[in-house]
Amino acid sequence: MTDSRTRLVSLPDESWVADVGVLPGIETVAADLSTLPDRHEEIEVCVPPYMQAFDRSLLARMPSLRLVQTLTAGYDGLPEAMADSVSLANAAGVHDTSTAELALTLTLASLRSVPEFVRNAATGTWAAPRIYDALADRRVVILGYGSIGRAIASRLVPFEVNLSAVASRPRPGDDLVDEVHGIDDLPALLPSTDVLIVIVPLSRATTGLIDDAVLSALPDGALVVNVARGKVADAEAVLAHAGRLRFALDVTDPEPLPTEHPLWSAPGVLISPHTGGATTAFRPRAVRFLRAQLDAYVRRGTVSHIVHGPDPVTGR
Amino acid sequence: MTDSRTRLVSLPDESWVADVGVLPGIETVAADLSTLPDRHEEIEVCVPPYMQAFDRSLLARMPSLRLVQTLTAGYDGLPEAMADSVSLANAAGVHDTSTAELALTLTLASLRSVPEFVRNAATGTWAAPRIYDALADRRVVILGYGSIGRAIASRLVPFEVNLSAVASRPRPGDDLVDEVHGIDDLPALLPSTDVLIVIVPLSRATTGLIDDAVLSALPDGALVVNVARGKVADAEAVLAHAGRLRFALDVTDPEPLPTEHPLWSAPGVLISPHTGGATTAFRPRAVRFLRAQLDAYVRRGTVSHIVHGPDPVTGR
Repeated sequence: MTDSRTRLVSLPDESWVADVGVLPGIETVAADLSTLPDRHEEIEVCVPPYMQAFDRSLLARMPSLRLVQTLTAGYDGLPEAMADSVSLANAAGVHDTSTAELALTLTLASLRSVPEFVRNAATGTWAAPRIYDALADRRVVILGYGSIGRAIASRLVPFEVNLSAVASRPRPGDDLVDEVHGIDDLPALLPSTDVLIVIVPLSRATTGLIDDAVLSALPDGALVVNVARGKVADAEAVLAHAGRLRFALDVTDPEPLPTEHPLWSAPGVLISPHTGGATTAFRPRAVRFLRAQLDAYVRRGTVSHIVHGPDPVTGR
Repeated sequence: MTDSRTRLVSLPDESWVADVGVLPGIETVAADLSTLPDRHEEIEVCVPPYMQAFDRSLLARMPSLRLVQTLTAGYDGLPEAMADSVSLANAAGVHDTSTAELALTLTLASLRSVPEFVRNAATGTWAAPRIYDALADRRVVILGYGSIGRAIASRLVPFEVNLSAVASRPRPGDDLVDEVHGIDDLPALLPSTDVLIVIVPLSRATTGLIDDAVLSALPDGALVVNVARGKVADAEAVLAHAGRLRFALDVTDPEPLPTEHPLWSAPGVLISPHTGGATTAFRPRAVRFLRAQLDAYVRRGTVSHIVHGPDPVTGR
């Protein structure tokens, strides 16, 4: 499907307009959706802001709107704000690089005692020589084996680990793991797991998945890395096992973690403030993704990553 | 060369005797070299202790000694303590895994703000959302491209970096880098380097290599990771550039770093207390290496890693 019309696409601000640049059949304008944008009646594709509040109700006031394209994987509240004829596409995949990188960062920093080194710097303490933990030879389980799980696996392989992957259902392996275990295999894997990296999507099935039973099955000293969502882990169980187990958490429950929360001072716990996706790696990948999506919208008669509503091109 | 004699080999302690296990033609005994060992007159191969002081002068009191096999890459003072007829082999390579892992740990922890997260935990501070640095897309230069440099490169490749390698002399690339630059290319590379990972051996040529000129050529915000030796970097130059540049240092000059040293509190500096090699990754790799060396000594008529003295088998 190709025609000579020019589609009006709103992008979050002028920096996105500049980065996305020129695309055949597309005119781009900046719209941060804090107020009704100029030419709102012509906007056919809307890309809402990233890491910034916006007025979702404005989407219902764009009569030409066909597609809302987020810059995030999540899209809470958007379907409800859109007409039934409007399609919604997310940006799953755009944060894979950054989130997988953080999973390795938290894993390595915890195992190799970086928090201790940082605390020692405050007192000018050069620790006496001892044998430190390494990641090499560790039995690592990636719980959740979608695109971020695979990105984590690809970064882990050169570290000489014993790697297992667990997904909701068992399936054959790939170039990184021999097989993908189903979630039913998890209890059998846990007693021999040194590092458990959690990257499942949050759903009814995964809420509280990392509970007392799972944590109790892990051996002393095991490390649990959560780069998924805070509610995937039972907060009380995490606190109860901190010290016997180690935790490196980019996400917590609640979030932000209140100042007085005991997790801040729990032994063996490293906390990053939900920084998985928002890095310098995001913008160039998001721009490439947006260009591909807009190009597909105009020229190839399809977009990928539709998560709600009809196909924006066929209307079905 | 094979004969039916049994060679007596001393290992640092009973745990090494147990881990090395049974080898044809070899009898192993524990000797920590704090005092003259039992059966010292029969010891043919001596493996001195690791991370523990010992009396080097005892080596001269072992009349059957043919080979001293260290568990370290370094062997300061040993040649002087041995008879000319005794050979010395080091254990270069045994620490590659652990040291390369630390290089990645320090790089990722610094770039992804782990020191800030650790300090924030002390005050219960959940930092406001912002765009953090990522390793992805960074221009990384590995300065020193021997076996540890390659081990670092293999771990960096999946992180989607732009990787360059620099060695003392230029040579063709490998499966990890297109080419290996000679040290003469370094000044031209520095202005576009985001992460400089230093893993050169300490020598007259590399003492003070990371000086004010090198650091001045790096762009603002660049990260320098030193997993080589403290004296490879000029301590005053590091202090002068801390803040404009970031540093992650496993080695310092002097070492240990005294409590009152200003580097502890310099901005953007992460210090680990020379933990590159001494991790859980060491023992299994050292055991495999020792078994291969002892097997070669008895059965194949050669050992690798001779750094001083005659070949212990041929005597030449």
